[in-house]
Amino acid sequence: MSTAQENLPQQPAAVLAEISEAIGLQEGAAGVRAVVWAFHQVGAASTREVSRRTGLPVPIAAAIGNELRRRGLLGRERPSRLTEAGTALLGERGAPPKVEVACAACAGTEITIPAKLREAVSRLADIAAEGPGADLALDQSHCTPETKVRRVLALLRAGVLPGNSLLLVGDDDLISLAVGVVGEVLGVRLTERLAVADISPEILEFISERATSLGVPVEVAEHDLREPLPVRLRHSFDAAMTDPPYTAEGAKLFLSRVIEGLRPGPAHNVFLSFGAKAPTEMLDVQRAITDLGLVTHGLIRNFNEYEGSGILGGTGFLQHLLTTDATAPLFFEGYQGPLYTRDKRGRQRQYICVSCEALIPVGAGARWNAVAELQQAGCPNCGKGPFRPGRLVEPAASGSEDAGADRDARQHD
Amino acid sequence: MSTAQENLPQQPAAVLAEISEAIGLQEGAAGVRAVVWAFHQVGAASTREVSRRTGLPVPIAAAIGNELRRRGLLGRERPSRLTEAGTALLGERGAPPKVEVACAACAGTEITIPAKLREAVSRLADIAAEGPGADLALDQSHCTPETKVRRVLALLRAGVLPGNSLLLVGDDDLISLAVGVVGEVLGVRLTERLAVADISPEILEFISERATSLGVPVEVAEHDLREPLPVRLRHSFDAAMTDPPYTAEGAKLFLSRVIEGLRPGPAHNVFLSFGAKAPTEMLDVQRAITDLGLVTHGLIRNFNEYEGSGILGGTGFLQHLLTTDATAPLFFEGYQGPLYTRDKRGRQRQYICVSCEALIPVGAGARWNAVAELQQAGCPNCGKGPFRPGRLVEPAASGSEDAGADRDARQHD
Ligand SMILES: C[S@@+](CC[C@H](N)C(=O)[O-])C[C@H]1O[C@@H](n2cnc3c(N)ncnc32)[C@H](O)[C@@H]1O
Ligand SMILES: C[S@@+](CC[C@H](N)C(=O)[O-])C[C@H]1O[C@@H](n2cnc3c(N)ncnc32)[C@H](O)[C@@H]1O
Repeated sequence: MSTAQENLPQQPAAVLAEISEAIGLQEGAAGVRAVVWAFHQVGAASTREVSRRTGLPVPIAAAIGNELRRRGLLGRERPSRLTEAGTALLGERGAPPKVEVACAACAGTEITIPAKLREAVSRLADIAAEGPGADLALDQSHCTPETKVRRVLALLRAGVLPGNSLLLVGDDDLISLAVGVVGEVLGVRLTERLAVADISPEILEFISERATSLGVPVEVAEHDLREPLPVRLRHSFDAAMTDPPYTAEGAKLFLSRVIEGLRPGPAHNVFLSFGAKAPTEMLDVQRAITDLGLVTHGLIRNFNEYEGSGILGGTGFLQHLLTTDATAPLFFEGYQGPLYTRDKRGRQRQYICVSCEALIPVGAGARWNAVAELQQAGCPNCGKGPFRPGRLVEPAASGSEDAGADRDARQHD
Repeated sequence: MSTAQENLPQQPAAVLAEISEAIGLQEGAAGVRAVVWAFHQVGAASTREVSRRTGLPVPIAAAIGNELRRRGLLGRERPSRLTEAGTALLGERGAPPKVEVACAACAGTEITIPAKLREAVSRLADIAAEGPGADLALDQSHCTPETKVRRVLALLRAGVLPGNSLLLVGDDDLISLAVGVVGEVLGVRLTERLAVADISPEILEFISERATSLGVPVEVAEHDLREPLPVRLRHSFDAAMTDPPYTAEGAKLFLSRVIEGLRPGPAHNVFLSFGAKAPTEMLDVQRAITDLGLVTHGLIRNFNEYEGSGILGGTGFLQHLLTTDATAPLFFEGYQGPLYTRDKRGRQRQYICVSCEALIPVGAGARWNAVAELQQAGCPNCGKGPFRPGRLVEPAASGSEDAGADRDARQHD
């Protein structure tokens, strides 16, 4: 694995394969090539931009960047550019052309925020700044105000809004308030009934309070979604949106609760936000979706942008699902299995960011093994710090450290 | 079902439900509401535009429009506008606001054609005009030159191009030639190896000939994909694109052949073009995809635009799939089951459009039961006619006429 450092000329294919092996990349040489291609397209690219373009999580894109740098294929300046040797990886016939391929107006998200809604973005930024910090142990991570408005626009585009009823299953992103604010800016009530189910009293309290002052009532239910939905929320909504924990089990559980909340029948709209995972892990999520009898109607890759580099590595996708005649929940009674990212890890301690109050797990299997690493990187939520120690996180499943750093970063960070 | 004609004021919910029942719409009242919402957003909208916005096939959108007109909810002028009573269906608080929600630059397709590739569009329009007509009995239907270029851009965006190898499984859309033309306009060779497998000698001959004069060799294989891929095409491509027949079986079969053609391993890119179906039928297609061990990486709803109103009702989606460690074909030996639209129908005769040479099935279960209907509608490929009778189409499966006109239109037309 060290031949490349000897500076011998090598076949591009061999170099790409070597880097992919060095970091145990499931995407193989094709994944490394995609990163090289992204650098070539952008010129000087940040890791985050490379992550966006390739669909690879930020930590993976960063690891590939480091391997490229070690081999003199990528410059050491930040943001970095390919060196001549790096560009040669893309083909011996000379550098391929730069073509802007994603739509520049919407950055490939299918939705642009119309001028009249810019005001909603800034109002939501103000509201979110006063809301509770992200509790990373509950797999919380806050999307940007632009993303909040774009999610409401996705609901408008699907005809869910204006509509009768909408259920939000998990709402640390404050989409309930975004519906209220967008409605106010447009001068129309967007839904008759808007409900949020979430385990976090802080989030629910914040939502209730702000919703009341907006004059857009939100029905909140403090509820552990491991249990079936409260009776008053069952079988009564036209549409739903959910942000499950970042595990296949989380997606399956939260989508089961979504289905319990929807009126029976096909063609109800469900929107799922989720983070990029390696293809083989994504298969579990997609199988859960078809097992629930839901079909994919759209999937927009970099739709959700998160504050900081975050648990999700910056971006996540929005999947538009429809119910069918075969739709039914998979979890009925209390769910006991692993659910959160940390449930698959060793013992960790939460650190609290003094600047933004985010709770960040540190320890074996977490993104940062030691608080020193976290201090160096800065808070994934606000980019700042410092940090003070919080409570120990009890692992729900026995933490087997089987995955390499890269897989771990992808699955869990 | 006739109360609405008595002009009594009715609850919007009841009217929407009544219309959905009248045409047996799987999407229910929500589907009718989505159509009303689309008319409201656009102002005066064509059926095609309503189909684009709602994701409903053109014949279904047309049927809903007719029901709305019969009830005085939609005007009789074309393109049509909602009447005041029609607008009231959207809420008693007055008309909701118009917001442009899909990105105007890319029309929600995520990809815009850069100025330097406009030339590729017009060259491909010229090429396609000289190519073979669409054989509707083979579920052929030609996408527009813009779509051809956008598909090549989707391949560039995924990093498939520039690349080593690309396999096209079915290519009446001439994507092989689009790769050649776009590469020529950009001044770069986009792939080392480009192969097409198709059953149609006319299409393959046309591709070979044009590819040679473009100086971009395409390897063509005349092959019935019911049989495994020819040995020389197996396990040797980095990526693939396919346009299967418009049935769940077709998707499963063509994707199995795609997998045979790919090098083993995860994270290879596969692009699937397919037409909108009702949610419960789509579930079969999506289950086939996960059964093959493929994951959805993106799904762009109105990506593919077709000439005429076509079999696909104007538009279809582009689904970006990735292989995983679990990817394996489902069909190995010769497949014998139903495959094409017509395989689920009664006896039909092909008619040949004298203007564009499209072959259009007519008869029980087809979109047109009698040639008179086809003449009135005009050719679905070029909008013109007239038609001369061609050969009888033998049904592969015994044609049971179970579905109502709307389901039939959706499944088969
Ligand atoms: C899992 S987090 C993920 C959020 C992230 N913003 C996203 O876009 O994907 C979403 C919400 O689920 C809530 N949540 C986590 N575990 C829960 C549980 N067992 N029951 C109910 N809500 C839960 C969190 O409080 C949070 O508000
Ligand atoms: C099924 S058609 C659908 C095309 C449509 N343009 C689209 O975008 O979805 C695609 C191609 O498959 C080819 N085809 C149909 N049946 C086939 C078979 N049994 N074996 C090989 N190719 C087949 C057709 O000739 C055509 O070129």
